[in-house]
Amino acid sequence: MSLLRFDPTSKDWVIFAPERRARPDQFARTSKPESATTRDSCPFCPGNEHLTPDEVLRIDDGHGGWRLRVVPNKFPALRIDDDCHRAEESGLFRHMGGCGAHEVIIESPEHDRFLGHQPVEQVRLLLQVMQARYKALLADRRIFAVIIFKNHGERAGTSLRHPHCQIIATPVVPRLHRLKHAIATDYFDLTGKCLYCELLAAELAHGKRLVVENDRFAAVAPFASRSPFEIRILPKTHRPSFGRVPEDELGPLAAILKDVLNRLHKGLNNPDFNLTIQTTPRGEEEKEYFLWHIDIVPRLTQPAGFELGSGMAINVMMPEDAAAFLRGIDGEDHD
Amino acid sequence: MSLLRFDPTSKDWVIFAPERRARPDQFARTSKPESATTRDSCPFCPGNEHLTPDEVLRIDDGHGGWRLRVVPNKFPALRIDDDCHRAEESGLFRHMGGCGAHEVIIESPEHDRFLGHQPVEQVRLLLQVMQARYKALLADRRIFAVIIFKNHGERAGTSLRHPHCQIIATPVVPRLHRLKHAIATDYFDLTGKCLYCELLAAELAHGKRLVVENDRFAAVAPFASRSPFEIRILPKTHRPSFGRVPEDELGPLAAILKDVLNRLHKGLNNPDFNLTIQTTPRGEEEKEYFLWHIDIVPRLTQPAGFELGSGMAINVMMPEDAAAFLRGIDGEDHD
Repeated sequence: MSLLRFDPTSKDWVIFAPERRARPDQFARTSKPESATTRDSCPFCPGNEHLTPDEVLRIDDGHGGWRLRVVPNKFPALRIDDDCHRAEESGLFRHMGGCGAHEVIIESPEHDRFLGHQPVEQVRLLLQVMQARYKALLADRRIFAVIIFKNHGERAGTSLRHPHCQIIATPVVPRLHRLKHAIATDYFDLTGKCLYCELLAAELAHGKRLVVENDRFAAVAPFASRSPFEIRILPKTHRPSFGRVPEDELGPLAAILKDVLNRLHKGLNNPDFNLTIQTTPRGEEEKEYFLWHIDIVPRLTQPAGFELGSGMAINVMMPEDAAAFLRGIDGEDHD
Repeated sequence: MSLLRFDPTSKDWVIFAPERRARPDQFARTSKPESATTRDSCPFCPGNEHLTPDEVLRIDDGHGGWRLRVVPNKFPALRIDDDCHRAEESGLFRHMGGCGAHEVIIESPEHDRFLGHQPVEQVRLLLQVMQARYKALLADRRIFAVIIFKNHGERAGTSLRHPHCQIIATPVVPRLHRLKHAIATDYFDLTGKCLYCELLAAELAHGKRLVVENDRFAAVAPFASRSPFEIRILPKTHRPSFGRVPEDELGPLAAILKDVLNRLHKGLNNPDFNLTIQTTPRGEEEKEYFLWHIDIVPRLTQPAGFELGSGMAINVMMPEDAAAFLRGIDGEDHD
C-alpha cells in the first residue's frame, strides 16, 4: 500500500511506497553495487514474460513474438485499486491514498540495444504506445497527471539494463507543473502568445543553441540549462498536450529523438540520462498557453548541498558550447 | 567569469560557472572515478596552506597552528568583484553578472576525522564561524541570500576528503526560498502563528517522528520527507534567521548536530549526505513567519526521471520508521 503526504511548507505531495524497499538496514553502505541483470534472469527478455505482471498492452511481431510490451511495475509507486480518499492526521499533516498507476514499457525484445540504435520505426512505435497509454490513463477521472520518463544508466536511477521507459499516473497535479503552467499562463495573458513557441522562434532565429531540426521539430540546449548538455525537443506546431500529437508527426519526432540520443551517445560515450515528456495536466489539453516537449538531462554532475538548499543550480557548461559540440557530431548510426 | 541566467519558464536563476570545468570532452564517461586526495596533496591539510587562496578567517590554536580556516573557493561559482549588472540578450533571455561569494570552511586540521567525531567544542566553533561569515556576507548590500552547506561523500557531490563546509552568497533570492517564505507568510497571515513552530509543537506532542531533543533543539524526521532518513533540526525558540541565534544556543546546537550525525554514521555505515542551513533572505531577519533550521539529507537513493519531470518525490521509507530506527542508536561517540 502506498500513500501520498502533503508537505505544508512547500505544498508538494510526496509519494510513500515503503514496499519498494523493506528494512532500514538495507540502506547501510555496502561494498559493491548490484550486478547488472543477465539475459537469463532479465524479466524483460523474451522467454521470461512470466516474470512480469500481466500485460497491459502488447505489440505482436507477426511471427509469434512481440515488438514491444507494456506491463505494470512489479513494485509500483501507485496502484489504481488503492483508494484516493484524502484525510488528515491533524490539520497540518494531510495525506491521501496511493491511487494511480505505474507501468513499464519494454522498448523492444533486445536486451542490449540502446534506443538511439533502434530503427526509427521502432522508436516511432514506442512513442505511439506512450501516447496510447497516456490517453488511456487520463481517461480515468481519478488521474490528474501522467508522467512519462526514461532512466538510462545507474546514475540516472535505473538498475535494470534491458531498455525500458516508465509511466506514473498521479491523483494530483505536481506543484512544479502548476508553477510552470501558471508562469506560461501569465505570459499568455500579458502577450497573447505561447511562451514556449516564442522561445523556440528566438532559438531558431539565431541558431546558436540549436542542435538539430527537421520539418516538424527542433532540439535546443535551453538558455538557462540547469546542467551540462540538457536538450529540449520542441514541436514547431503549437500544441499543449502530448496526447494530441497527430499520427503523422510521430515519425519526424522519432527521427529527431533518435538523432539526439545518438549524438549524446557518441559525443559523451553513452552517458546516463533521464528523459521526460512535459505536457499539460487533465482538462488543459486545449489551453493556448503551453507547448508540450521532451527534456533530456544527462547525469554528468551531481547536484549537491547548494542545489538542495537553494533550489538553484550551478552549471559548468554554457548551452552554446554544448550545442556547438553536439552539432559537430553525426546523428546517424551506421551499425 | 561567472554569470546568472533567468529561466523564463520556471523563474529560476541558474549560475553558469564554465571555469569550474573546461572542455566538453571532459564529460565523456571514463573507466575510473577520481582518486581521493592524499594528505600530502590535500589543500586543506596543515603545511599546505599555500595551496588555497588567501584566508578570509582563521582561528588559531594558540600554539602556532590553526583550529579552523575559511578560504575562498579556488574555483568559485560567484565572485564579489564580478559585476551584478542585469542585462538582456533579448526580452526573453535575461542575465546578470556573477557577483557573490563562494567560500570554504576547513572544519579542522584533521584530514580524516568526521564532523560527528570532533569534540563538541570544535563543532560549536564551526557553527560560530558559519554565523560570523553569514553576517559578514549579508552586510554587503549586493548579497541577497547566503546558503551554507556541507557535502559529505561522492554521492553528495564532493571529491575532497578533508572535512569542509561551503558558503555561497547570491545576488538574488532563490525562487525556492521565495516559495517557502510565501507559504509560511500566508500561514502566518491566516493563523497569526509560525508554521514551523506549529509543526515542531505537533511533532513534540506525539513524538513518533522525533529522533532526539535537548533543552533548546529537536531533531525530527519530517512528515513528508522526500527521501529516506531526512532529518530536520529545529530550534525550540522562534527565530527567523540563523544570523540571530544567540551565543548560548550554539553549544546545545553543536551537541544535537553531533548526536544526529553520529546516529546516521553508525546506523547507516557512514552514508553520504548533504547538510544545509535554511534561513531568511536579506531584510527579513525579524519577520515572524519563518523558523531557521538545519536539513540533513542522506544520499541513499537516486532521484530519477519521475522526480526531474514532476518535481514530486517517491520515498521508500516512512519517516516514523526512520525516526524509530535512529532513536535506537546511541548518539555518543566513544572513540
